[in-house]
Amino acid sequence: MITSLVTGGAGFIGAHVARELLKLGHQVVVLDDLSGGFEENVPTEATFVQGSILDHELLARLFEQHKFDYVYHLAAYAAEGLSHFIRRFNYQNNLVGSVNLINESIKHKIKCFVFTSSIATYGALEPPMREDMTPQPEDPYGVAKYAVELDLKCAHEMFGLDYVIFRPHNVYGEYQNLGDRYRNVVGIFMNQLMQGKPLTIFGDGEQKRAFSYVGDIAPHIANCVNIKESYGEVINIGADQEYSVNELATTVMESMGLEGMIRHVEARNEVQIAWSDHSKAHRLFGTDRATTLREGLDQMVDWAKRTGIKKSSKFENIEVTEKLPPVWLED
Amino acid sequence: MITSLVTGGAGFIGAHVARELLKLGHQVVVLDDLSGGFEENVPTEATFVQGSILDHELLARLFEQHKFDYVYHLAAYAAEGLSHFIRRFNYQNNLVGSVNLINESIKHKIKCFVFTSSIATYGALEPPMREDMTPQPEDPYGVAKYAVELDLKCAHEMFGLDYVIFRPHNVYGEYQNLGDRYRNVVGIFMNQLMQGKPLTIFGDGEQKRAFSYVGDIAPHIANCVNIKESYGEVINIGADQEYSVNELATTVMESMGLEGMIRHVEARNEVQIAWSDHSKAHRLFGTDRATTLREGLDQMVDWAKRTGIKKSSKFENIEVTEKLPPVWLED
Repeated sequence: MITSLVTGGAGFIGAHVARELLKLGHQVVVLDDLSGGFEENVPTEATFVQGSILDHELLARLFEQHKFDYVYHLAAYAAEGLSHFIRRFNYQNNLVGSVNLINESIKHKIKCFVFTSSIATYGALEPPMREDMTPQPEDPYGVAKYAVELDLKCAHEMFGLDYVIFRPHNVYGEYQNLGDRYRNVVGIFMNQLMQGKPLTIFGDGEQKRAFSYVGDIAPHIANCVNIKESYGEVINIGADQEYSVNELATTVMESMGLEGMIRHVEARNEVQIAWSDHSKAHRLFGTDRATTLREGLDQMVDWAKRTGIKKSSKFENIEVTEKLPPVWLED
Repeated sequence: MITSLVTGGAGFIGAHVARELLKLGHQVVVLDDLSGGFEENVPTEATFVQGSILDHELLARLFEQHKFDYVYHLAAYAAEGLSHFIRRFNYQNNLVGSVNLINESIKHKIKCFVFTSSIATYGALEPPMREDMTPQPEDPYGVAKYAVELDLKCAHEMFGLDYVIFRPHNVYGEYQNLGDRYRNVVGIFMNQLMQGKPLTIFGDGEQKRAFSYVGDIAPHIANCVNIKESYGEVINIGADQEYSVNELATTVMESMGLEGMIRHVEARNEVQIAWSDHSKAHRLFGTDRATTLREGLDQMVDWAKRTGIKKSSKFENIEVTEKLPPVWLED
């Protein structure tokens, strides 16, 4: 029996990866502190442990008890724009937490460590982002993700720990936290529409992203451990087609059958265009078919309507308030 | 009156930088947790605060109280080879601690943040190391230092925080901790000779380093804030002349007037040759004159003989013991 740990498995992408692993016949243990996830997202066939990757004693017990074959590390506080203002929290959660898992993975000689990094590692490089480009992260979130990538390479050199690193981007779909005001524009728009509020767009809305449906991504993250050619690789994964945030707003409204006002707020410091070259993923995984934006949104809308409105909560421990976008301080 | 904070000012390089700042007329506050430093290293004219950069509430109070103009961040646990085995501790001390200082430096709008990174950021690149090369750190210590560099760049872009980054290498001299078994081969050799013990060398001793006398470096670190051309720059600093560890052993014995046996222990995973191009430092600071190895060692030996033998202490919280060099476990 193959046993896998999925950190962040009550969160968005983790909930999907956990389901894909169950389909592959793995025993699945989900570890999640429920800071951004929900216990109801965890598939019932998985063992759920509520706890944090910062609790290294808990990790030691879990690794001892379950003898994991694989670790899928998806737990993160993935609020890129907010990371400037919560530097300490960002590095604690996204780097030190990851390193606790790497320590245990070394000690228990797991077979492969699968890590979801981010397109944020590239920063403001000229797109399309290719894996052979040198990362130039532009925010602490991207720095933390890149540091974990570099640490995994060190752990491989020194201890032979195998790994696969994914750099997904702008993923949306079912189980996304609709109550998070700082991240995931698709969920923010849906939540605002359902509450009859205007859709907030930073700047002119012409910033472009290739929004990626989670159902096109999670199966490959889950199955990569069976594809030896992916070991030791950094792999972009996600959609090729880019859309402006304005186009996204229109399509979300169509999919929901709801009209909303647009409220443009002051532009924030963010990358204007970000899209990736996926030829490596296509070659390794045969990821050529992609769900269209409208198809993916329709699936997410079905789920969002069943799940209902979530009240957007504020992050309580902002470390630096200078230059914080005012919209993030509103009730 | 100009006021500067020197973290790690009871440690080796920090103790020298604090003295250089006093010569420049700065008021100096030294913050050090004495984990590797000694209170007697702090110059009497400086204000000494015993505490850790991990204590962000203490930092907030100090910044509020002293209104620092400049921050010289030299506090670190600089045991490169050991960092594979103390990943969590390494990132906590060397990254999260740094980020606490960056947060306060942003909030209090200090004039310049001077950071001592390391040649370890380069990893196993082909020497000479030049600042325009893309870092490829090979151990968690180098990853943490590089992550701080990247974070400083983000802080500059977002908040306008000015910085100067130094990448020194293989620095030796007075105030070096002679009781540390994991780092600083010069101090280890002196301590072993004074105790009548054999000099331990990893592998054949033909690994080469450009050992750099601290007196050639500290004045430039201190004065860089007065050289605007250095702002925003990453600057290699240190000696050009490389020596093998075997040659170093011979020269230390000559300088001390003591003969010692050589004990070769199993080679560890380390970079074979590391030296740097210093043309940028020469251009910015006029650092052309270098103290010879023998001159520098003679100065250090004078001090070491006065300071006397320190018992080498063990690091208590090793996280991963697999592949740990056995010599580090001996009493």
